[in-house]
Amino acid sequence: MNAVVAPPPTAVTAASALAAQFARVRARSVALAAPLSAEDAMVQSMPDASPSKWHLAHTTWFFERFVLATQPDYVAFDADWHYLFNSYYQSIGPAHARPQRGLLSRPSLDEVLRFRSLIDQRVLAALQADALDEQATRQLVLGLHHEQQHQELLLTDIKHALWSNPLQPAYRDDLPRSTGTASPLAWIHSPEQIVEIGAPAWPAHATFAYDNESPVHRVLVPAHALANRPVSNSEFRRFVEAGGYREPAHWMSEGWSLCQQEHWQHPLYWDDALAREFTLAGWRALDPDAPVCHLSYFEADAYARWAGARLPTEFEWEAAAAGQAQQGNFADSGRLHPAAPDQGSAPDRHLQLFGDVWEWTSSAYGAYPGFRTFEGNLGEYNGKFMCGQWVLRGGSCATPADHIRPSYRNFFAPSARWQFAGLRLAKDAA
Amino acid sequence: MNAVVAPPPTAVTAASALAAQFARVRARSVALAAPLSAEDAMVQSMPDASPSKWHLAHTTWFFERFVLATQPDYVAFDADWHYLFNSYYQSIGPAHARPQRGLLSRPSLDEVLRFRSLIDQRVLAALQADALDEQATRQLVLGLHHEQQHQELLLTDIKHALWSNPLQPAYRDDLPRSTGTASPLAWIHSPEQIVEIGAPAWPAHATFAYDNESPVHRVLVPAHALANRPVSNSEFRRFVEAGGYREPAHWMSEGWSLCQQEHWQHPLYWDDALAREFTLAGWRALDPDAPVCHLSYFEADAYARWAGARLPTEFEWEAAAAGQAQQGNFADSGRLHPAAPDQGSAPDRHLQLFGDVWEWTSSAYGAYPGFRTFEGNLGEYNGKFMCGQWVLRGGSCATPADHIRPSYRNFFAPSARWQFAGLRLAKDAA
Amino acid sequence: MNAVVAPPPTAVTAASALAAQFARVRARSVALAAPLSAEDAMVQSMPDASPSKWHLAHTTWFFERFVLATQPDYVAFDADWHYLFNSYYQSIGPAHARPQRGLLSRPSLDEVLRFRSLIDQRVLAALQADALDEQATRQLVLGLHHEQQHQELLLTDIKHALWSNPLQPAYRDDLPRSTGTASPLAWIHSPEQIVEIGAPAWPAHATFAYDNESPVHRVLVPAHALANRPVSNSEFRRFVEAGGYREPAHWMSEGWSLCQQEHWQHPLYWDDALAREFTLAGWRALDPDAPVCHLSYFEADAYARWAGARLPTEFEWEAAAAGQAQQGNFADSGRLHPAAPDQGSAPDRHLQLFGDVWEWTSSAYGAYPGFRTFEGNLGEYNGKFMCGQWVLRGGSCATPADHIRPSYRNFFAPSARWQFAGLRLAKDAA
Amino acid sequence: MNAVVAPPPTAVTAASALAAQFARVRARSVALAAPLSAEDAMVQSMPDASPSKWHLAHTTWFFERFVLATQPDYVAFDADWHYLFNSYYQSIGPAHARPQRGLLSRPSLDEVLRFRSLIDQRVLAALQADALDEQATRQLVLGLHHEQQHQELLLTDIKHALWSNPLQPAYRDDLPRSTGTASPLAWIHSPEQIVEIGAPAWPAHATFAYDNESPVHRVLVPAHALANRPVSNSEFRRFVEAGGYREPAHWMSEGWSLCQQEHWQHPLYWDDALAREFTLAGWRALDPDAPVCHLSYFEADAYARWAGARLPTEFEWEAAAAGQAQQGNFADSGRLHPAAPDQGSAPDRHLQLFGDVWEWTSSAYGAYPGFRTFEGNLGEYNGKFMCGQWVLRGGSCATPADHIRPSYRNFFAPSARWQFAGLRLAKDAA
Repeated sequence: MNAVVAPPPTAVTAASALAAQFARVRARSVALAAPLSAEDAMVQSMPDASPSKWHLAHTTWFFERFVLATQPDYVAFDADWHYLFNSYYQSIGPAHARPQRGLLSRPSLDEVLRFRSLIDQRVLAALQADALDEQATRQLVLGLHHEQQHQELLLTDIKHALWSNPLQPAYRDDLPRSTGTASPLAWIHSPEQIVEIGAPAWPAHATFAYDNESPVHRVLVPAHALANRPVSNSEFRRFVEAGGYREPAHWMSEGWSLCQQEHWQHPLYWDDALAREFTLAGWRALDPDAPVCHLSYFEADAYARWAGARLPTEFEWEAAAAGQAQQGNFADSGRLHPAAPDQGSAPDRHLQLFGDVWEWTSSAYGAYPGFRTFEGNLGEYNGKFMCGQWVLRGGSCATPADHIRPSYRNFFAPSARWQFAGLRLAKDAA
Repeated sequence: MNAVVAPPPTAVTAASALAAQFARVRARSVALAAPLSAEDAMVQSMPDASPSKWHLAHTTWFFERFVLATQPDYVAFDADWHYLFNSYYQSIGPAHARPQRGLLSRPSLDEVLRFRSLIDQRVLAALQADALDEQATRQLVLGLHHEQQHQELLLTDIKHALWSNPLQPAYRDDLPRSTGTASPLAWIHSPEQIVEIGAPAWPAHATFAYDNESPVHRVLVPAHALANRPVSNSEFRRFVEAGGYREPAHWMSEGWSLCQQEHWQHPLYWDDALAREFTLAGWRALDPDAPVCHLSYFEADAYARWAGARLPTEFEWEAAAAGQAQQGNFADSGRLHPAAPDQGSAPDRHLQLFGDVWEWTSSAYGAYPGFRTFEGNLGEYNGKFMCGQWVLRGGSCATPADHIRPSYRNFFAPSARWQFAGLRLAKDAA
Repeated sequence: MNAVVAPPPTAVTAASALAAQFARVRARSVALAAPLSAEDAMVQSMPDASPSKWHLAHTTWFFERFVLATQPDYVAFDADWHYLFNSYYQSIGPAHARPQRGLLSRPSLDEVLRFRSLIDQRVLAALQADALDEQATRQLVLGLHHEQQHQELLLTDIKHALWSNPLQPAYRDDLPRSTGTASPLAWIHSPEQIVEIGAPAWPAHATFAYDNESPVHRVLVPAHALANRPVSNSEFRRFVEAGGYREPAHWMSEGWSLCQQEHWQHPLYWDDALAREFTLAGWRALDPDAPVCHLSYFEADAYARWAGARLPTEFEWEAAAAGQAQQGNFADSGRLHPAAPDQGSAPDRHLQLFGDVWEWTSSAYGAYPGFRTFEGNLGEYNGKFMCGQWVLRGGSCATPADHIRPSYRNFFAPSARWQFAGLRLAKDAA
Repeated sequence: MNAVVAPPPTAVTAASALAAQFARVRARSVALAAPLSAEDAMVQSMPDASPSKWHLAHTTWFFERFVLATQPDYVAFDADWHYLFNSYYQSIGPAHARPQRGLLSRPSLDEVLRFRSLIDQRVLAALQADALDEQATRQLVLGLHHEQQHQELLLTDIKHALWSNPLQPAYRDDLPRSTGTASPLAWIHSPEQIVEIGAPAWPAHATFAYDNESPVHRVLVPAHALANRPVSNSEFRRFVEAGGYREPAHWMSEGWSLCQQEHWQHPLYWDDALAREFTLAGWRALDPDAPVCHLSYFEADAYARWAGARLPTEFEWEAAAAGQAQQGNFADSGRLHPAAPDQGSAPDRHLQLFGDVWEWTSSAYGAYPGFRTFEGNLGEYNGKFMCGQWVLRGGSCATPADHIRPSYRNFFAPSARWQFAGLRLAKDAA
């Protein structure tokens, strides 16, 4: 499952498989940006989001800096760009301020695409020449996973950018509509059990996982029940109509402050009539059966409390996902929006654990016992954000299918609303 | 241990014991404010802190509102004060804005003391007349624990207030100095085990505990080691001298931002020469053997990383504390500052788990499985803060000795520096 | 008129007159603070306002620093207080941050009163011993005018402080109510003329004036008309009722932004029913005949535009005031609130130019041609504020009667609402 | 001079002259944007600045809204664009928030250029068909002056945008360098005199002037001296080297706060070595003889005080400019940067009053006696900003030559640094 570097019969085969994967992943980013003009690709609608052009350049910089520049005498494409396209790696130098990324008219989108093209050639040539040592190869593999994360961010950031424009144009007009029906809500009970959580540490273990997923460790998961599917739009609309955004008793204190301060009245991209939502295909009628999305943690948590339930822990979620087939509505479906599944299902099976919406958990993002960051500069990749963020699980309609796994831990601040994030209810055992 | 309502032989005895405890706790608050002028008692040096006068009034309002006002026809001391001295109970009405508490010259400190006196008389009369029903009695018991929390806050808030005055006067000049010596640092190892965490839910169970400590539940605590004592001033000074406040690699990303933005260079109350610290007795030479305190979570966490260790989880801490005698340097000692213990100890025993400094844990403050808030309006007491806060354990030199217990969970934002908060190191099993 | 240092027959007489004036002015400040508790005297309800205790201390520091400390070997009352009670004199050292003045519980009000008393003794002794040189004497004279400015600020600041307390107590309960009637509005026309503006520069000229009033210079004042009296509460209420606070066309762009941002709906201290206003005697019925007050420049200017008129220039005002008797409702009346005059008046005379309310002019506060700041450190007194402030003229009900003169230029930011500031209409010649 | 609508021999000739002028002015804006990519044209580097694309669209909207839309049955190019490209005309509807102008990737630059082209055709057709009534024609004339203002802003805004990019690219590489030499500084004295200030009110008078320049009125200008030329870079560098940015005594209080808060150490676009400055042609050596520019009012005023002089009033400036030939280094020179004049001059003549740099005056921007705003919605053009701004005179190297006149009053906040603003010294008569 998700093996990035399969157990190599010969190094040549492995390098050639890696080259194919590299070409495929890199091309996908360019394809995602294709519907955008150079102007669209420059918009930064809030400090948390980045311009598409920046995503395209930063992911390329990652390969230049962590793969190519490990070679002696490597000459950078443009030394000034190190500063521009470093995101947050303090150990390798200062970086351009994040909230200013939208001011970069230069380099142009064309120049960035040339940069991509050239770096791609250099990486592929290095792979073909077997010129990458173990560390460089490892960082190349990491770079592909890194790029896939930015593919999802490119979509969520451009969605926010287009929505922020009073003209509210669509990213693409031709996205398919969903036609499925939500299954009846059912509870699936689990007894107290000790479960193995996490993934073996990569690269010691050949299958890729981020450092934050390791090591595998044992967790006592108490008896509980988990809903068979995510909360739907129609269910969440009942919460809104019942005054859920006006009653502090449902909310965390900090969430309630934010709700009032920013005048939240419904999920981010809904209209005030609770009838339509803004999608990557523009404004569309709200599908009552589709999973609700673009919720902050605070909204997800408030809904769960109002519904007499709670959010699951990330361990409850992972225990449920462990044995499941990793199918779902991912970016690969081309739908780019959550949807009810086309065929129903027996009420005793977890549905839509993967794809559609990231599921907020009640788990604060932290280190597993025995956690070690990646070696070297890439130690900054995940570990330094283990404070003030919450874990989300399962991937979304904007996640590449081969990017996700049961142990995958996404994380965002509890205030974040612009991701494809929803929720699945949980309950303590009676 | 800490039984607030002992198993009652007769109701009369219980009421009389409760009356005695009420009188004692209430008198203690007034005694803590005694060294302060009316002007001192009015200072609010930052939004997180409250004036002493407000603490005295708010704790009294708590008894009036949640004990006396449950009686039919109760006439409030002054109806306008409900608004002034409600803290954050949204379900019972609006409250005066927290950052404006320092503007309340009226009511005067004298009036507040009269308010205290009158409410005390009314409560004691009600107890004597057996006029309190079960709910009122329960809320009275809760009110005493609530008051003890505010006793600690009164001390930390006035310390910050006096330090904020360029004259930096002492709260009291006559506090004893510590003379103890820190034990050598040693590691105490524990194998993986399932431990019972938490306290049985009060009031169903007679022994008091806050709702956030319940229910008792089983947690798998992995193999680990815990330091035998908190980190000392001399140890922390080495971190400062080694450039710990200038190296981002030690810090959480959010902590590093804060460190730079607020120009942190050492713990809050140290001088720049790292030689003296501001205490409730004014400026004093830094005691190298005393536990370091007034750290934010970010500083505690950065120190631990620099030291090749980590913060303990709250479960590791509670497992260690479970069997321990609950002795330590509490507010009752009259020292009001952390100190090295007077007698040393065998290296295989946990020292100073209780008292001296609250110990930051790596556990985000959240709900235990099966958590239920207190019933009624007091459901807002703890639950709504379970986001964005970190758990601290063990009590401090400003905590009343009979307020603490092994299951006690204190919580603060990771940026908070003005509490008596330090740390104890932990390590994963090799 | 207003001669602070009368043409001296002998130096002894002058010194003795000065001593008497010193004693009188100094006692007045203490009397103004008498109704306040130590707690009241500590409140700082916004950064623009200062605690009464600070006013009492700062004015005393002014005499210590600029009169007594000019003597060799002078030993300060408390050297640390220099920092605390310096306001903005950068040339003589750093000062405590203005927004933090409300945190100073120490020194206590009692200590500040002792400070006042001691400095008074020292100054009077120096005067008696003829120990002050010319510079020190000059600075003493300036210090008395300075103290009178702070007497007015003490009243406006405590008014804001008491109003900011939800209990909204009165400063004094015993202030007399006004019984007068507003004269009918009439216009007094003036032809184009060259007028002499300003006062001869003190101390070269014996009569005191601030540096910003000098030198006397010629100004061409165009033909215009001035209203015979200030705008009344009933007139301003018509503006409010006509939607004046909801129509941007009446407002300066910056004023309109502020009006919306701070939700202005009427003058600062009016209630929403437009029926009552908060005064130093607490809430009282709005007197329809009294001059409207507590307006910002933006509100005064918007009213004038709505009324088809404009604000006068400071030169138009001074030309009108030049020949007038300097009588009016000053602080000395003990009313401490604007009032309609007890007797009416011929419609061809300017009424209430002095006292009642400061009158906003359309003149930005700037330097007169040939302006020179006071010599030495006191050059910082007025000149450095000549940017972003607007001139007000005539004094108010909180101004000491012997503090004002026709050439007197008060100045505040156009957003300031907490002063006793109103307006008089002007019109261009048809 | 500057006659926009020359006294018409026949209406046909006037319309044809206006059409020619319209075509010329409109083409000039497009030419100014020609060196920019669509990405460059979208940058908004601070709230005070606007993207080039916005300038191109807003000036076009002005003609559509105020000229074409006065015709019955006019159908807007795109009704949604009214909201996007309204700047601040509240009387005609809400406008897109100014700080968000940089988020508008749509409409694209191409669409905006098509919008320009179509509106140009419609306006020219209307002129040819004599279809514009008097009001529409008047607003067309105003629109041309309005467009010229935005031409200058386009240049100053793009300069700031390019400088804000860490790559700091040039707007154009081919701008000529200056070769002139600054004349020796000399003072030109004027006796007290009454001068006629301002321009007759347009459109009653045929020659165009903004409402803020009218009516003509008499002002008594005191005896004074004016420098023969603006302050040069070498002179200003001496101020910097003498510690001018570190000594509060030179500064207005508000300016000093800003200087410290924003760490000003020299004019905006200078390097820290005081050797180079950023220009529209990129970084260039500082020309010691060229007029200093990109100063805020605070810096200009501080320099003047340090130099023992002061800023001139706008009346002193206008009196000096009244009789002068209106020649200078304007945008038409193609230099786009201030320069010393190529030929020297007799020391008794005012040099460079026009062009090179806007000259800060000590005059707060306010209404002249008898001021009337333009009629209708365009009354919002100038009047509502008459608070908190300072007057600058004379035009700059970015001003079109036929846009300026002796009575022209430009205005900016005293903190503004990104305009081509410098100063000329003045002195009171001895």
